[in-house]
Amino acid sequence: MTVSVEKPLLAALREALPDVAVLTADDQLDLHSRDAAPFGEAGRPVAVVRPETVEQVREVIRAARAYGVPVVPQGARTGLAGAADAVDGCLVLSMVRMDRILEIDPANRLVRCEPGVVTADLAAAVAERGLCYPPDPASWEVCTIGGNIATGAGGLCCVKYGVTADYVLGLTVVLADGEVLRVGRRTVKGVAGYDLTRLFVGSEGTLGVIVEATLALRPPRPPARALLARFPSASAAGEAVSAIVRAGHVPSALELLDRTTTEAISALGHPLFADGGAATLIVASDAPDAAEDVRAMAALCRDAEALSVTAAAGEAESAGVLEARRMVLPALKARAAALPGEVTAFIEDVAVPRDRLAELIDRIELIAGEYDLYISTVGHAGDGNLHPTVVFDRSDPDAVRRAKEAYDAIMAAGLELGGTITGEHGVGTLKRDWLARELPPRGLRLQRDLKRLFDPEGLLNPGKVLA
Amino acid sequence: MTVSVEKPLLAALREALPDVAVLTADDQLDLHSRDAAPFGEAGRPVAVVRPETVEQVREVIRAARAYGVPVVPQGARTGLAGAADAVDGCLVLSMVRMDRILEIDPANRLVRCEPGVVTADLAAAVAERGLCYPPDPASWEVCTIGGNIATGAGGLCCVKYGVTADYVLGLTVVLADGEVLRVGRRTVKGVAGYDLTRLFVGSEGTLGVIVEATLALRPPRPPARALLARFPSASAAGEAVSAIVRAGHVPSALELLDRTTTEAISALGHPLFADGGAATLIVASDAPDAAEDVRAMAALCRDAEALSVTAAAGEAESAGVLEARRMVLPALKARAAALPGEVTAFIEDVAVPRDRLAELIDRIELIAGEYDLYISTVGHAGDGNLHPTVVFDRSDPDAVRRAKEAYDAIMAAGLELGGTITGEHGVGTLKRDWLARELPPRGLRLQRDLKRLFDPEGLLNPGKVLA
Repeated sequence: MTVSVEKPLLAALREALPDVAVLTADDQLDLHSRDAAPFGEAGRPVAVVRPETVEQVREVIRAARAYGVPVVPQGARTGLAGAADAVDGCLVLSMVRMDRILEIDPANRLVRCEPGVVTADLAAAVAERGLCYPPDPASWEVCTIGGNIATGAGGLCCVKYGVTADYVLGLTVVLADGEVLRVGRRTVKGVAGYDLTRLFVGSEGTLGVIVEATLALRPPRPPARALLARFPSASAAGEAVSAIVRAGHVPSALELLDRTTTEAISALGHPLFADGGAATLIVASDAPDAAEDVRAMAALCRDAEALSVTAAAGEAESAGVLEARRMVLPALKARAAALPGEVTAFIEDVAVPRDRLAELIDRIELIAGEYDLYISTVGHAGDGNLHPTVVFDRSDPDAVRRAKEAYDAIMAAGLELGGTITGEHGVGTLKRDWLARELPPRGLRLQRDLKRLFDPEGLLNPGKVLA
Repeated sequence: MTVSVEKPLLAALREALPDVAVLTADDQLDLHSRDAAPFGEAGRPVAVVRPETVEQVREVIRAARAYGVPVVPQGARTGLAGAADAVDGCLVLSMVRMDRILEIDPANRLVRCEPGVVTADLAAAVAERGLCYPPDPASWEVCTIGGNIATGAGGLCCVKYGVTADYVLGLTVVLADGEVLRVGRRTVKGVAGYDLTRLFVGSEGTLGVIVEATLALRPPRPPARALLARFPSASAAGEAVSAIVRAGHVPSALELLDRTTTEAISALGHPLFADGGAATLIVASDAPDAAEDVRAMAALCRDAEALSVTAAAGEAESAGVLEARRMVLPALKARAAALPGEVTAFIEDVAVPRDRLAELIDRIELIAGEYDLYISTVGHAGDGNLHPTVVFDRSDPDAVRRAKEAYDAIMAAGLELGGTITGEHGVGTLKRDWLARELPPRGLRLQRDLKRLFDPEGLLNPGKVLA
């Protein structure tokens, strides 16, 4: 950007927004230049703006448009695909200060809020009113509702309760020309015209800026009962998953940990993982007959040749089993600490039809060997959605190259097994080229047409989702 | 259409399709000229084509395009908004002969089928494999999956199990230029690009012709327990609905019958309706603890001043209670038979936030009085979705005028109460003008832009959804 544009743009922004809402200090530009994706080639923003009102968002869009400057909407930057990475000379439009919960409506089981509300805060606020907002992405304690909607985020309990998209009733969006558009409804049902709401969900800030959301809620979830089963192979664990699904169970969590992850938690000294194993399943039920449900699923794990099955006897024991799932990150951190160099990790995201899960795990194990990488795979097995985490030394160019190649190899494996390149993280910049391999040419063309329709000047988050 | 176009078009169709697939006899043109909507100003098709393969559908689209003839996709013609009404000189593209179930996949809980499969047939076929396809529109014994998807159909059990849209994982669509497009996936989760699948759902044949669907399935539903409660007023019944929702119950049916309907069934001599009442609730639960669930909901009905509450003691009694819901149509028919003239009925469809339900019922009662019409209202109370049925003599021009005005008045009331002009029937031609009252101008413009993007020549189902 030339100085001749930067100066009047900043002047216009400072005119329209309070001073504290326009950040240009180097450390702020650094901080807001990228999300949590690895390999992102993030650019440098000219400024970070943090509006507090819809009108201020409109002013930002209008100013950016007047000076032909791209706008990158941003939440808590926990995204893992680079969708919130800055592009050179852009305005980063941080939505974190629009964080009000506007309305909780128990009679209609819905909540209306601004996009910057932290997911866990929203969940806590509705829980106080005796309601539940189920979507629970791994970063739910820091990520924002706006980001969840923009990426179409998932989580652990999706296997029973669905993903973020399933809870979005309506949105208010500021379009690329600065106009405000309301889409969707406050009613449970509605089929009045084409579904624009679902088009904005998962559009990663490329079609409009979400400034308000109306979300469906559910009754509170009953306490869960849990079991943990160790298996001699990924395919035995996959068999157990298939058997659980075939028998008609609807668990509230159905998580799979591969051999590497199982061993890493075992190395931390967790008693349930003491004997290792090639794969571990952690299964929960919050059905009204949870104890019976868990007993039946435990039997299916045994039938699938589990090495051991621990069905929690009560609530406290169940909490202990579910806590084991949260040991994945500490275990990986401990492992990383033992490695030399500037160790980092990336979390991949692929989804395959449920019955191809074990094959994908086996393929990932082969990929780890082939590229000489440490890959720990955990996944939402009930959804066929796996997250292989690659731990590598980013100060070692060869390790970075191998990690990038493994990233691609995992997506290729996912597609080969009839799956998708992203189950819940989105496309961003990291999977942009892969989108063209997943979608048919005509589908890709229509995606581009849609982008052009909503944002003819390519102002909103350019280069994300589509090249 | 001029004869000069009609002749070569028919020749081209007979070249591309088997003779039996091209119908031009008067009785066939009559039969296929309209769906089940009242007031529709259906045109006359030049031919009805019934392809059996995707390639034949493409040939039909190509021929229609070559001769500039509009195409109206059609399923079982049970739609209630005129979306499948013929337009003058069009080709009716009846999908009923593409009725194969292509694959049932229990491990991944999905089914792949052609659009002409009858919904009940699909449900029966997957039930044989131990699975369940929940969506149950009232016409499910005759309507087709393609029509359900095209209109975004709902049903009785939506309150717990969601609507048709929630089950559509992927679609194959023939576009307006004859190209085939696959959208969506076979995986449970997926966020690769903009959600084109949801854009086609509910698009009423205006964006493309659905030729295949991949649908999610569920485990079988357990047997339901039911209760029936009579109330002294619609607002008391509305209170009970709110209390049931607030207490966190998730009933598998939560149906409301207004005073007129209650009296009509009572007149048939149904024992559960013997004492009449201003409103009746029929509630079911298929939770694992259904008996307890129903007992708790019965108590809430009593707290809401129910005149009487009958909680079924077992499965047989529950079936009897749920059967009462199916008495609505026979009761209306009996009532209609007692009226003079050429009696007909239309079934309206509006949805409001759940807690405005009683207000809407009261408004409809006022509208019935104002226009001197017999209006019987039943509804999916748990979804805030009401179906007022207006019974009138269509040989009486004044009655027709009053019925039309009541139709509009009911939609106006729905919008005024914060609702939508259609919960599950769609827009078609009947609610087209009302769409502009529900959507903001910019939203309507975007809807038009989308139509133009997918169908620049306006070939597919012109005049439906959008004028």
